[in-house]
Amino acid sequence: MSSSTHDIEEGLAFTPKFDADGLITAVATDAKSGDVLMVAYMNDEALRKTIASGEAWYYSRSRKALWKKGETSGHVQRVVELRVDCDQDALWLKVEQKGPGACHTGRRSCFYRAVPLGKSGAVTLEFRDGEKTFDPGKVYK
Amino acid sequence: MSSSTHDIEEGLAFTPKFDADGLITAVATDAKSGDVLMVAYMNDEALRKTIASGEAWYYSRSRKALWKKGETSGHVQRVVELRVDCDQDALWLKVEQKGPGACHTGRRSCFYRAVPLGKSGAVTLEFRDGEKTFDPGKVYK
Repeated sequence: MSSSTHDIEEGLAFTPKFDADGLITAVATDAKSGDVLMVAYMNDEALRKTIASGEAWYYSRSRKALWKKGETSGHVQRVVELRVDCDQDALWLKVEQKGPGACHTGRRSCFYRAVPLGKSGAVTLEFRDGEKTFDPGKVYK
Repeated sequence: MSSSTHDIEEGLAFTPKFDADGLITAVATDAKSGDVLMVAYMNDEALRKTIASGEAWYYSRSRKALWKKGETSGHVQRVVELRVDCDQDALWLKVEQKGPGACHTGRRSCFYRAVPLGKSGAVTLEFRDGEKTFDPGKVYK
């Protein structure tokens, strides 16, 4: 193990590893239930703003823009705890999700469909917790 | 919203969206505690094998190889539930982690350090659940 790998994995210096696009993967879970709410990305600025404010900021790959989660919907995420993984290329945010949900489709979590296991070939998804908790047409004007 | 976006978000066809490298992000959480154990990647073959076997397979970006989680360590992940997100570019595996841990550093989770909030400038990490649960030198020969 090289000294730098040891530092990254066992050290206390925060040296987040951004990918070729300058992004790092961020997983937000509900601090109470443990459910994964969303998987998103941060650039350096989003990460700095998240750390400084204690509220989640991300970088939208499709819109190519920094965004504060909830800036339009009001569904802000208060970060209860922020963790980094062993090789410092992924982040885990335990959040208190304000409002009825995190997903732009109107659901609490973005993960509202299950993939059945034990199959090969074409797969048909099954809704799980698929009820909409808000009307995205009203929330995102 | 285009018809295809609607199909991806509201449909029951599983159409995972792999990135330019042919990979999709996969988040494994402990099915009981809800803790995030690891963030990894799957290629099409790893995903097919995971679905068919009910055990987690990933693709290692550093080793450029398919790997069954636990193939060396015995620390297999039984998939309790597999979910896909709204735009079908991320997966969530709720797993039963066999053995003492998921992380190659010898810990239960890869996320054993917290980033303190409310700071700007240099950040010093803090260990959380940082105790090693196994000796990686013995497990990975």
